[in-house]
Amino acid sequence: PDETARRQAVARHQTLTKPAGSLGRLEELGVWLAACQGACPPRPFTRARVVVFAGDHGVAAQGVSAYPSAVTGQMVTNFLTGGAAVNVAASVAGATVRVVDMAVAADTPEQISAHKVRRGSGLIDRADALTQQEVEAAIAAGRAVADEEVDGGADLLIAGDMGIGNTTPAAVLVAALTSAEPVAVVGRGTGVDDNGWMRKVAVIRDALRRARKVANDPVALLRTAAGADLAATAGFLAQAAVRRTPVLLDGVVVGAAAVVAEELAPGARQWWVAGHRSPEPAHALVLEHLDLTPLLDLGMRLGEGSGALAALPLLVLAARVLGEMATFDEAGVSGP
Amino acid sequence: PDETARRQAVARHQTLTKPAGSLGRLEELGVWLAACQGACPPRPFTRARVVVFAGDHGVAAQGVSAYPSAVTGQMVTNFLTGGAAVNVAASVAGATVRVVDMAVAADTPEQISAHKVRRGSGLIDRADALTQQEVEAAIAAGRAVADEEVDGGADLLIAGDMGIGNTTPAAVLVAALTSAEPVAVVGRGTGVDDNGWMRKVAVIRDALRRARKVANDPVALLRTAAGADLAATAGFLAQAAVRRTPVLLDGVVVGAAAVVAEELAPGARQWWVAGHRSPEPAHALVLEHLDLTPLLDLGMRLGEGSGALAALPLLVLAARVLGEMATFDEAGVSGP
Repeated sequence: PDETARRQAVARHQTLTKPAGSLGRLEELGVWLAACQGACPPRPFTRARVVVFAGDHGVAAQGVSAYPSAVTGQMVTNFLTGGAAVNVAASVAGATVRVVDMAVAADTPEQISAHKVRRGSGLIDRADALTQQEVEAAIAAGRAVADEEVDGGADLLIAGDMGIGNTTPAAVLVAALTSAEPVAVVGRGTGVDDNGWMRKVAVIRDALRRARKVANDPVALLRTAAGADLAATAGFLAQAAVRRTPVLLDGVVVGAAAVVAEELAPGARQWWVAGHRSPEPAHALVLEHLDLTPLLDLGMRLGEGSGALAALPLLVLAARVLGEMATFDEAGVSGP
Repeated sequence: PDETARRQAVARHQTLTKPAGSLGRLEELGVWLAACQGACPPRPFTRARVVVFAGDHGVAAQGVSAYPSAVTGQMVTNFLTGGAAVNVAASVAGATVRVVDMAVAADTPEQISAHKVRRGSGLIDRADALTQQEVEAAIAAGRAVADEEVDGGADLLIAGDMGIGNTTPAAVLVAALTSAEPVAVVGRGTGVDDNGWMRKVAVIRDALRRARKVANDPVALLRTAAGADLAATAGFLAQAAVRRTPVLLDGVVVGAAAVVAEELAPGARQWWVAGHRSPEPAHALVLEHLDLTPLLDLGMRLGEGSGALAALPLLVLAARVLGEMATFDEAGVSGP
């Protein structure tokens, strides 16, 4: 982000018709956006985009989720017909949705399957999630999608997730990169019961034993313990920073990919704001690790990008405050 | 709020294509809106309205604020020309703004001064804020404005405040009704310095001695320690409940009026949601007293209704989720 625009935005806030600092975090957000854009006041978003990276996970067969894997493909169809939470939240926030099938176990329409690398990622508790070729293809796909979006005019990016079982590899990635124990990262996901929770801890434990050996190599870590959807998300988040485009982060799955992306492209997190805090335990570790303070804390744990989209109007407001409020001089208002 | 619609909304949430409860607080908000409207799914808002009650306060002359009283009238003009934070926040959230001059010390346009009861409210540390006739007129004005708005189609109401010095009477009202001490309710307001803070505590202390004697009579309390703007806001909030219209509360000044409104119309708080948490100490007491959990906690302390407006898109999203998301059956998605 641009230091000159940042300083201009800080100074501009002092001139607007409100007590200094009285918009709190919204003022900081506006300053951050100005720095990301290198422009003060920041331009309002003209194309905020959500990209949902979808993929199945072999571990779903181990009973780590409340839902069957078939739901991933069904929900992808639901995204395309506009019936999911991400569609409604995008509409409210003025964003549009793109779905990218990276590893859904079912067939999906051609328009979203161009980057697909396989049908379901591997059983990470006993084998690698992906081959070396697949992980490289998945990361490259995420980067390519970010490039396509920025080249197409996207000025704010959100990554979303869809994949039954995906909080299990997400927990493993977070544990591997924050040196946490399995019980500290395991959560209920979509609402697994007590027996499922115990199966999930065991899978995370076994997968983590494999993951820790490669924790210092982000590509190897994604190959070993992630999946094509998570690898693509990490590539997407890293490339968004390369393309100097601000990102609003979603919950634990995107957060896990973000922790890896920060390893792929150190400093990328300067281009990110955390949209919300998920009740998933691993998400707290993500936020602490990346030193991000979430905008919302509403107990949301749906994924799809919904938490980031719920926060997007705050970012819109932050930008428009800097662009549209009158100054003390313009409005003829006395200062303190 | 309507119990049948509430139960229908709870049940409908279970049928939508998301894990049960995964939208957290947003689900509760949607249920509350359905109950307020007596309709499931709730109708999207067609006319969300902010009414900013403006008024000056005699205590501003005691040096309790960082700004001179002249700013109240200047900011009212700024609201009318669209340059203030409330205008930008309303535009982002799809709401419109009305300004009502209750006691601005300056002349204001006829369109907003029909309900004006005086120029500046009294020095509450040594005299009553209003006469009995004035307090009754101010409360009636607030009720009349709520009626006008609901009759005009408003389906979501927000009260905002503008008045240099108004966090001082707000703190007194909160202290009187929650049995708190002056130092527990005094805050920096628009950003008063240390000397001003000490003057403010002394004014609150003296005003509170007068206010405690009438704390069990809400009208007498408003007459003694509030001001025409706060009295009108209390009447407005009470009448919104009478008219079964949901309200999104702003920060400490509106919150103080809300505490009094709950005395005027016990149970009114069922029609309210707290938009945000202000860093003003008295606001924490308001939220606790009314048993409300705020949607946002972003360090906002501007007033004008800006905190409620920042939260409004969450309420819009909550309503639209219930109305627009596909059910498991409709989308052909397998359940857990």
